[in-house]
Amino acid sequence: MKLVRYGAKGSEKPGVLDAEGTIRDLSGLVGDIAGVTLSDEGLARLRGLDLSKLPAVDASVRLGACVGGTGKFVCIGLNYADHAAESNLPVPSEPVVFMKATSAICGPNDEVLIPRGSQKTDWEVELGIVIGKRAKYVSEENALDHVAGYCTINDVSERAFQAERQGQWTKGKSCDTFGPTGPWLVTRDEVADPQALKMWLKVNGDTRQNGSTATMVYGVKHLVSYLSEFMSLEPGDIISTGTPPGVGMGMKPPVYLKPGDVMELGIEGLGEQRQTCIADPE
Amino acid sequence: MKLVRYGAKGSEKPGVLDAEGTIRDLSGLVGDIAGVTLSDEGLARLRGLDLSKLPAVDASVRLGACVGGTGKFVCIGLNYADHAAESNLPVPSEPVVFMKATSAICGPNDEVLIPRGSQKTDWEVELGIVIGKRAKYVSEENALDHVAGYCTINDVSERAFQAERQGQWTKGKSCDTFGPTGPWLVTRDEVADPQALKMWLKVNGDTRQNGSTATMVYGVKHLVSYLSEFMSLEPGDIISTGTPPGVGMGMKPPVYLKPGDVMELGIEGLGEQRQTCIADPE
Repeated sequence: MKLVRYGAKGSEKPGVLDAEGTIRDLSGLVGDIAGVTLSDEGLARLRGLDLSKLPAVDASVRLGACVGGTGKFVCIGLNYADHAAESNLPVPSEPVVFMKATSAICGPNDEVLIPRGSQKTDWEVELGIVIGKRAKYVSEENALDHVAGYCTINDVSERAFQAERQGQWTKGKSCDTFGPTGPWLVTRDEVADPQALKMWLKVNGDTRQNGSTATMVYGVKHLVSYLSEFMSLEPGDIISTGTPPGVGMGMKPPVYLKPGDVMELGIEGLGEQRQTCIADPE
Repeated sequence: MKLVRYGAKGSEKPGVLDAEGTIRDLSGLVGDIAGVTLSDEGLARLRGLDLSKLPAVDASVRLGACVGGTGKFVCIGLNYADHAAESNLPVPSEPVVFMKATSAICGPNDEVLIPRGSQKTDWEVELGIVIGKRAKYVSEENALDHVAGYCTINDVSERAFQAERQGQWTKGKSCDTFGPTGPWLVTRDEVADPQALKMWLKVNGDTRQNGSTATMVYGVKHLVSYLSEFMSLEPGDIISTGTPPGVGMGMKPPVYLKPGDVMELGIEGLGEQRQTCIADPE
């Protein structure tokens, strides 16, 4: 299934794509694409529905982030060997973990706000893992049992805030709209191999990232198992798994986003995003 | 006011202390100590109540974290000059920001779980700021308008996970029960000067930390203003503002927590916590 959340920001409704790609309204059946709806049982219930009997939603509707109720937005750094190289950093001997603010989460096609004082806002297409069942001390073998599905994420990053404003990356990762998530939460049964997905990102029509999850250093099973040693992963939590080469910081000379720039990005089977950058109006 | 949340973990009810220190049940009036209840208007409404008319709650009840609906648990590192010195790290030229998982939040007297494989679980008494009104790009002058109140926090930390397991501190800060919060959310009108509060922590009866918020490098007003440059702070968000000297890592030789150890800690006017350490039973 391809699950979506649609409508105005902060009051999104749950939906599902039918075979023709039309959004069908799930709001009469579940409160949100969140919590127990993400469990195997909750997803099985939705899978059994006759979608033709559910209201169709106008295709022009705004899409929100494809998952709600996210308690943690955990990210993995330097998880593609070539991206580590372009960042002039060594491949880590175990996963590098940091967090984005959940308040950074936004819809896949929302405007991305360039924060006040930003000179180095950058892009990162990433495979997102959405947790469906609580995970703590889980083995790699059992890790996928805890995954509801996958989505496309743009881990928007301000490099000066991240690396030139004193220790820890949180400041450069957490600005409002720095986490476009979606368009779809694609349930794990529809992703045969999460380590063989092409991924790409364009800025103003020029391809900047063109990679594959095949070159991840630490794969999905390892990451879920590994993180569950350090914290409980809960339904709705998102893990963004790192980005392949081609970020603005790695260009010679570096290139960063400015108001008016358009990012388009996608992951094979998980759908595409499109964001226009604007100066933060606040 | 001193606001509390009481009852079983995950289903806490809201309450308030009366003049005698008895918890009065607020669950007939507000859903939780969270969201709009934390606004100036929400708090004014509670302040106007005749508490003697509200049900009294048995004093033996479990206390949960004093605030609910926390979207972000933002922490400040090395924010006391003497603590930076004991950590062999320089005082930062601007605040060091990291995040704890919100799943680490627990009640003030809950057991603290020593994670599997942990050898270096440590303590940190900290002043917590609870956000009451959304804050973005706010000035220091206006910062306190966005603060609902203050609380005691134990920023429990696993030093090997934090510093010896590859970059970023998240892994050592986010384990379940690593964020005892409370007992009370003391509204800001009752804290005349948040930069003049004594704070202390004992392990098995021996005083380990004995400081004051007077020696913070970056104070409450600055932190709220500063963080609001990088992210929207939202009602229920918690900022833990750093710890004074006396953590286990700074002892010669270092001393860490083991099952059976008891931590007692408090901040002047904000109440006390008591946690027994146990091996994580999961």
